[in-house]
Amino acid sequence: MKARGNTFVVDTTNSPYAKLRPVPIENVHLEDSFWAPRISMIREKTIPSQHEIIEETGRLFNFRRASGKERGGFRGLYFNDSDVYKWVEAAAFSLAAGRNDDLHRLTRQTILEIISAQDDDGYLNTYFTFDNKKKRWTNLRDMHELYCAGHLIQAAIAYYRATGEHELIDAACRFADHIDETFRLGKRDGTPGHPEIEMALVELYRLTGKRRYLELSKFFLDNRGKGLIGGSPYHIDHKPFRELDEIVGHAVRSVYLNCGAADLYMEIGDERLLEALFHLWRSMTERKMYITGGIGSRYVGESFGEDYELPNVTAYAETCAAIANVMWNWRMLLITGEARFADVMELALYNGVLAGISIDGEEYFYVNPLADRGTHRRQRWFKCACCPPNIARLLASIPGCFYSISSEGIWLHLYAQGKVSIDVNGVSVKLTQWTRYPWDGDVKIMVQPETESSFSMFLRIPGWSRKPKVLVNDQPIDQPLSAGSYLEIRRLWKHGDIIQLVLPMSIERIVCNSRVMENQDRVALRRGPLIYCVEQVDNPDFDVWNLILPLDSKMEAKWEPSLLNGVVIISGEAYAADDEIDGQLYRVETSSSVKMRRVKFTAIPYFAWANREPGPMTVWIRSLMLPHQAT
Amino acid sequence: MKARGNTFVVDTTNSPYAKLRPVPIENVHLEDSFWAPRISMIREKTIPSQHEIIEETGRLFNFRRASGKERGGFRGLYFNDSDVYKWVEAAAFSLAAGRNDDLHRLTRQTILEIISAQDDDGYLNTYFTFDNKKKRWTNLRDMHELYCAGHLIQAAIAYYRATGEHELIDAACRFADHIDETFRLGKRDGTPGHPEIEMALVELYRLTGKRRYLELSKFFLDNRGKGLIGGSPYHIDHKPFRELDEIVGHAVRSVYLNCGAADLYMEIGDERLLEALFHLWRSMTERKMYITGGIGSRYVGESFGEDYELPNVTAYAETCAAIANVMWNWRMLLITGEARFADVMELALYNGVLAGISIDGEEYFYVNPLADRGTHRRQRWFKCACCPPNIARLLASIPGCFYSISSEGIWLHLYAQGKVSIDVNGVSVKLTQWTRYPWDGDVKIMVQPETESSFSMFLRIPGWSRKPKVLVNDQPIDQPLSAGSYLEIRRLWKHGDIIQLVLPMSIERIVCNSRVMENQDRVALRRGPLIYCVEQVDNPDFDVWNLILPLDSKMEAKWEPSLLNGVVIISGEAYAADDEIDGQLYRVETSSSVKMRRVKFTAIPYFAWANREPGPMTVWIRSLMLPHQAT
Repeated sequence: MKARGNTFVVDTTNSPYAKLRPVPIENVHLEDSFWAPRISMIREKTIPSQHEIIEETGRLFNFRRASGKERGGFRGLYFNDSDVYKWVEAAAFSLAAGRNDDLHRLTRQTILEIISAQDDDGYLNTYFTFDNKKKRWTNLRDMHELYCAGHLIQAAIAYYRATGEHELIDAACRFADHIDETFRLGKRDGTPGHPEIEMALVELYRLTGKRRYLELSKFFLDNRGKGLIGGSPYHIDHKPFRELDEIVGHAVRSVYLNCGAADLYMEIGDERLLEALFHLWRSMTERKMYITGGIGSRYVGESFGEDYELPNVTAYAETCAAIANVMWNWRMLLITGEARFADVMELALYNGVLAGISIDGEEYFYVNPLADRGTHRRQRWFKCACCPPNIARLLASIPGCFYSISSEGIWLHLYAQGKVSIDVNGVSVKLTQWTRYPWDGDVKIMVQPETESSFSMFLRIPGWSRKPKVLVNDQPIDQPLSAGSYLEIRRLWKHGDIIQLVLPMSIERIVCNSRVMENQDRVALRRGPLIYCVEQVDNPDFDVWNLILPLDSKMEAKWEPSLLNGVVIISGEAYAADDEIDGQLYRVETSSSVKMRRVKFTAIPYFAWANREPGPMTVWIRSLMLPHQAT
Repeated sequence: MKARGNTFVVDTTNSPYAKLRPVPIENVHLEDSFWAPRISMIREKTIPSQHEIIEETGRLFNFRRASGKERGGFRGLYFNDSDVYKWVEAAAFSLAAGRNDDLHRLTRQTILEIISAQDDDGYLNTYFTFDNKKKRWTNLRDMHELYCAGHLIQAAIAYYRATGEHELIDAACRFADHIDETFRLGKRDGTPGHPEIEMALVELYRLTGKRRYLELSKFFLDNRGKGLIGGSPYHIDHKPFRELDEIVGHAVRSVYLNCGAADLYMEIGDERLLEALFHLWRSMTERKMYITGGIGSRYVGESFGEDYELPNVTAYAETCAAIANVMWNWRMLLITGEARFADVMELALYNGVLAGISIDGEEYFYVNPLADRGTHRRQRWFKCACCPPNIARLLASIPGCFYSISSEGIWLHLYAQGKVSIDVNGVSVKLTQWTRYPWDGDVKIMVQPETESSFSMFLRIPGWSRKPKVLVNDQPIDQPLSAGSYLEIRRLWKHGDIIQLVLPMSIERIVCNSRVMENQDRVALRRGPLIYCVEQVDNPDFDVWNLILPLDSKMEAKWEPSLLNGVVIISGEAYAADDEIDGQLYRVETSSSVKMRRVKFTAIPYFAWANREPGPMTVWIRSLMLPHQAT
């Protein structure tokens, strides 16, 4: 096993079918005003406050109860162990990125409680103890045993990598061995109703080198589509994985499964897996994904809907599903090095995921509508509390998603002011980024190899960028540049070489495929990686649902340092339609039904909505067709 | 009990708190080209074809099985008896309106099978026989026993009124007595999870004069909101009925309950019941009803959504819910004589309900979207087949909803060519209507009292009408006329007096309250009582979802005798927007993103959609703001 200090999000260091290799969280030092304070907030505020709730709600009690230290009935939902594991994983990533002795102690203590609940045979799930012990493994579809096990394994891996302490990873391995013995020796057939363990087992294989974990992961994946868990699309059990071509079912389950399949592909290289993943990705991104990167539009079954079924007010778009979207695209990026995956990862991260947590780091959305009347507010916790610790672990891990390495050189996926040390074919290279990204698209990168060295720098040119420019040591590069790709700059890099990346952030009006009826005759505003929304509190003079943007609307972006911890707002001129049909649902239109007046409006990043006074909000803004558009 | 030939839909003849009294189906002779052929179709085609399916699917087998004539397990869903009862009720109304000896024989035979399944103690439900007998009345919330009983009672009443044959009503009374004994003597508490029996019991009281049935109905209504069936809004058990102010829950259950409460009010006059009904009606019509009169917008729980939650593509709008809407508004109209209830009844009947059955009378919609891509098609039957026999019984009963009587005179609610005989304070009055309604709003009515008589004619002036005119014997009446009211013409009527009602049917653009985001910047087309839609098959040159109607669009209505059994179409000039973002979900808008071209379009009545080649359809059409609207 590897030594402490290599906290990878996904360790593809030795994965034969991955193009990219990881840079550990420890090597990445973010010093920007966007991510650095958020990651500190997660460590200093979110994670400690979540521990209090995990204790309050009986989740830790359940472990003490299982170990015999406390008495009483099991508390909460049967899969609540997973929240504790995600919390540990969040703490581990946080500790990898920055020291906090109190948090370290708290995590250790929590881990000891977890471990003490493990059975002698390695089994570990606090629900299936005492009376419920006989029900172990009897309902893989509904009872989330393998799901909880997967989260335990992921937490253990992250904590071991971050601290080098081995108690939890030992326990996780014992449990994984127990599962392997339970299933692999022909004693039981099955596959989990809620995927998660597939990716965990591949990562455990990567950490330990034990092939049985990889094989067990493949066993669970190969068992899908056989009807072992009922054969429903909801459980993604209606077809063998390799035959999937449409993304369906419970969004988190579906995309966690894709993560597992991608992890498996990176180790075993089955091209049918990759083909299915490509089909599923196109199905999602071309027909079933919100402009925020949110997925799973349906309340019914927390699921993907039909193609183009993307309602705004009644969007489900679970925070966990946007998180899963980041996780999946990160893996697709590692496999391929293709920028389209980084684009979706960035989109989901800055918009769909970030909206899931309040600016103060202690309240959460489970459901993320794209339009609202002001009644949808973040909560401190949920009975089914999958989202809060999930967003904590994802955001804590983000430093690990900025850079990758390949045999050719260094890959830059995300931009933020800060430093990183990366080993390129034996040469240590230090990179320093200066940028105000995501508020500004100018990025200056100083390259400092310990010795002059020839390698490539792969710079992500985001799909959203228009007319990007790149200079090396003040000279425009002599290469074609295209948005939505990685620009490879191969040269002999000298200490202090400077790359300048200029990604002009214009305010863009995004239109939607007309098959999404709700978005016809509407535009969304995008600037850089951020999707904007109009919120009532910034626009007191009209109902934001009645804002109408003409095509020639003059708009400008402005940095507001004191607003929402500092955001770039978009303001501009538009119209407000004042309808007069209050109290009536339907009315005959007359030429005076709608009165429009000129107004000034302000839009904020979508991730920041619902942090102030409640009121209407919408991402998709009505647009005004101009007569010259008619021919 | 009353003699044969008084087949009332709701018999308010002696109801102390009803303003209007009924005219039996037997007295109403429709001779028009809209309803008369439909009602014949129901009798000659729909009802016989449904009997075949009811037999095929084991619904009649279940009765034979329960009576010991056949062996085997119960077939289908546990509430399938109700479909047989609704079928009998449909047949009864059909036989009241027109003779069909084959259907009469078939109905008699079916009734004998029903009766033979009755237990000695009066209990009658084929699911709760043999092994399930011990479960009787143990789960009122889910098992629909009282719901099925209600449908049996309604069928029995209709059949007795239509034929004078007493076997089924005797059986129904025995069952009702059994229920009364089961619940009323303090043996059991409870209320049905699916309301229905409330209105049935009140009608049984009206037929038999036995007050115990009325009291039993009130017992069930008064037991709501006590948590006896779980206390959920879904079951409308979250509050006592008299405290309800928002319409919620499963739409059919909710509105059937309102029907029961309205029936109860008409007998016992509890003003708190009526107040609650008014609140619920406003909640529905002002915030939760589709423009088609369809209700229950949500798939989840087949339920009413939040205020203004009225999606188009994913509308649920169950056919049974639109039927319930007609039933409820009919009762509200009987209570009050207020035209607003007749307006909603007419709207739901001609649009939301009629769309539920194919033009050929043998296929049905369960779910009624207001926009579609061509995949939603009517089916011959459903596993849960509540809608097909429900639409049959409603349409078969429609002749009974054209007229009412009050102490002042005769009320005309609906218009169609035909004749009726009505007794007004002892004087027999014959009315003859000549009209092409709903295709044309000119209605000529000849009044023929057997002797000159002074009474009022209450003519419904539909809420949709603009500049209506009324003439009596070619003289314009000297009274103010207003749409959405009943015009009372009181005079000494002579044999052959002619009333001319002129309701100009212009094509109207209807706009929706802007709180329904999906309908912003859209219009629906209405002409007379009919809501229109654009369907792809009539508009081959552009996608109907991309049709854009400018405010000054020239439109005209035209009778098309050979289309869809004869409909008035709307055609006009508009634009089609050809978007170029096929394959992409989101794209940056440019001035060339949308190209508009002038097109001619055709719209058809919504009820007639999905009877031809499948393709996109929408009720709400994009509209184009004109620059002069901006100030």
